[in-house]
Amino acid sequence: MMRKIAIAIHGGAGPDSELIRKNIEGYTSGLEKAIRAGYEILEAGGSAVEAVEEAIKLMEDDPLFNAGRGSALNNKGEVEMCASIMNGKTKKSGAAAIIKNVKNPVSLARYIMEKTEHVLVGGIAASELAIAAGLEPETDAYFVTAHQYDSFMEERDKKSVTELLKKKMHSTVGAVAIDKKGNLAAATSSGGTTNALSGRIGDSAIVGCGTYANNATCAVSCTGDGEFIIGGVIAHAISSAIDLQQYDMQQACDFVIHHQNKDTKGDIGVIGIDSSGNIGISFNSEHMHRAWISADQPLQIKIY
Amino acid sequence: MMRKIAIAIHGGAGPDSELIRKNIEGYTSGLEKAIRAGYEILEAGGSAVEAVEEAIKLMEDDPLFNAGRGSALNNKGEVEMCASIMNGKTKKSGAAAIIKNVKNPVSLARYIMEKTEHVLVGGIAASELAIAAGLEPETDAYFVTAHQYDSFMEERDKKSVTELLKKKMHSTVGAVAIDKKGNLAAATSSGGTTNALSGRIGDSAIVGCGTYANNATCAVSCTGDGEFIIGGVIAHAISSAIDLQQYDMQQACDFVIHHQNKDTKGDIGVIGIDSSGNIGISFNSEHMHRAWISADQPLQIKIY
Repeated sequence: MMRKIAIAIHGGAGPDSELIRKNIEGYTSGLEKAIRAGYEILEAGGSAVEAVEEAIKLMEDDPLFNAGRGSALNNKGEVEMCASIMNGKTKKSGAAAIIKNVKNPVSLARYIMEKTEHVLVGGIAASELAIAAGLEPETDAYFVTAHQYDSFMEERDKKSVTELLKKKMHSTVGAVAIDKKGNLAAATSSGGTTNALSGRIGDSAIVGCGTYANNATCAVSCTGDGEFIIGGVIAHAISSAIDLQQYDMQQACDFVIHHQNKDTKGDIGVIGIDSSGNIGISFNSEHMHRAWISADQPLQIKIY
Repeated sequence: MMRKIAIAIHGGAGPDSELIRKNIEGYTSGLEKAIRAGYEILEAGGSAVEAVEEAIKLMEDDPLFNAGRGSALNNKGEVEMCASIMNGKTKKSGAAAIIKNVKNPVSLARYIMEKTEHVLVGGIAASELAIAAGLEPETDAYFVTAHQYDSFMEERDKKSVTELLKKKMHSTVGAVAIDKKGNLAAATSSGGTTNALSGRIGDSAIVGCGTYANNATCAVSCTGDGEFIIGGVIAHAISSAIDLQQYDMQQACDFVIHHQNKDTKGDIGVIGIDSSGNIGISFNSEHMHRAWISADQPLQIKIY
């Protein structure tokens, strides 16, 4: 039986900013390009894993999103990236943390999922693994964009945490999809947060927190303040709400964001697709870059 | 109101081995020393966070357990350690991944939880953070024990994955506790698995998977095959079973291990304490080093 295909992507959630207001068109076209590429794979009979990987690769290559090229600079002025992917059919997952010089972190996550016995590999060894795997390398300079450089220079002398938090850009990218065989997949990729401690690993590397997929329930990708997403184990909490409370996809997203985590001090945004191809989206922040399309819903792209 | 204090610890779960059979006495006395130290802190009115940290520090210092001194050697013949801790009152957590030369990884996890804005810090930067934090450093040689060295030398030339898996030692350590104020905490620390890829991060560094604590539900620490614990998001799944299905602590552990993950190919063991001080323990492996004690239960120590 052919299932209803669907894909949803996000390009980050957080406070409004000048960067967003100035680049609405760029973000919109970036989201459109990414989601169309993923959807075409699904239409052609490709797997959900392939679709989410491709959509994320395009956003990693787009300098406007905080993943791959355009990643935030940490407190040493360096780019360190994280990504994760999960296959809902096998419940296998792969993730890479604090990696450098890997053009597409999501592809390293997929390599770790499919070619190693491990789930999460981090640090210098993970970057070495990417080279051994034949993934495309890139120079340090490739990843640094003018807006991330300016953001780093502005913030590095600030003392007030409040000021720092206000400026945070959470433009992590993510994707969830269901393919014609009814298999689900989710993936997330992030360049971290400006001025974060070197070595900081966010929810985007953490299966259960930033990314989760299980054919029995749903596929979820999160974005926002990573530390609060980890505290709420958000992606798995949404799956549990479907599994144990029989919520539908949208109800499960709303329950976890607006009820279970109603007192959170962090920005959290989620996208999900359940095993019937229903899409759920929920966020508590001023904006969430997002787009979705399915066999029975035309393409939608929203920023606020 | 004074609550019933309780603490449970584990020293790993997995297949039986000659090392275990030869060292039953050493494992038993190591568990006893650790749990008594944690329980004394609780009796004296100390916090659950302090109790789990202290119990784990003692097991990290004990060369028989695969955490701190006595950690497994990865495929480069190096010790890389992970640890995590979570405070059930604040739902804040801290974790350190792929760290070296830190005598007590659990103390670095606690430092990250309490003194930084982050949850998880990994790699060289995390080891540097430990030095900046004034935590006790140790040499590479300190961590290497004869049995881990032998295990590494035996395994590194083996080609068969089946052979490798059979030999795996999962002697990760963990602790959960409830203090007189009714606050819960959980912590886990691990030296990884022999011959793992350098850079591999296991469930012990991952909040929601290896460690979870929430005063509203329970505190959980896991041990076993990390990759399967991550896939099942085990610690949070147990909390969800209490939260959403009103299972008691033991039922929730059994439900997640023997029902939700009944088809898992990995060894998984869990300990949990709920907000009333009830203890739950469940595992699907041949052995699980474990001990528990509470205000109304005398000390119990079990290996098989």
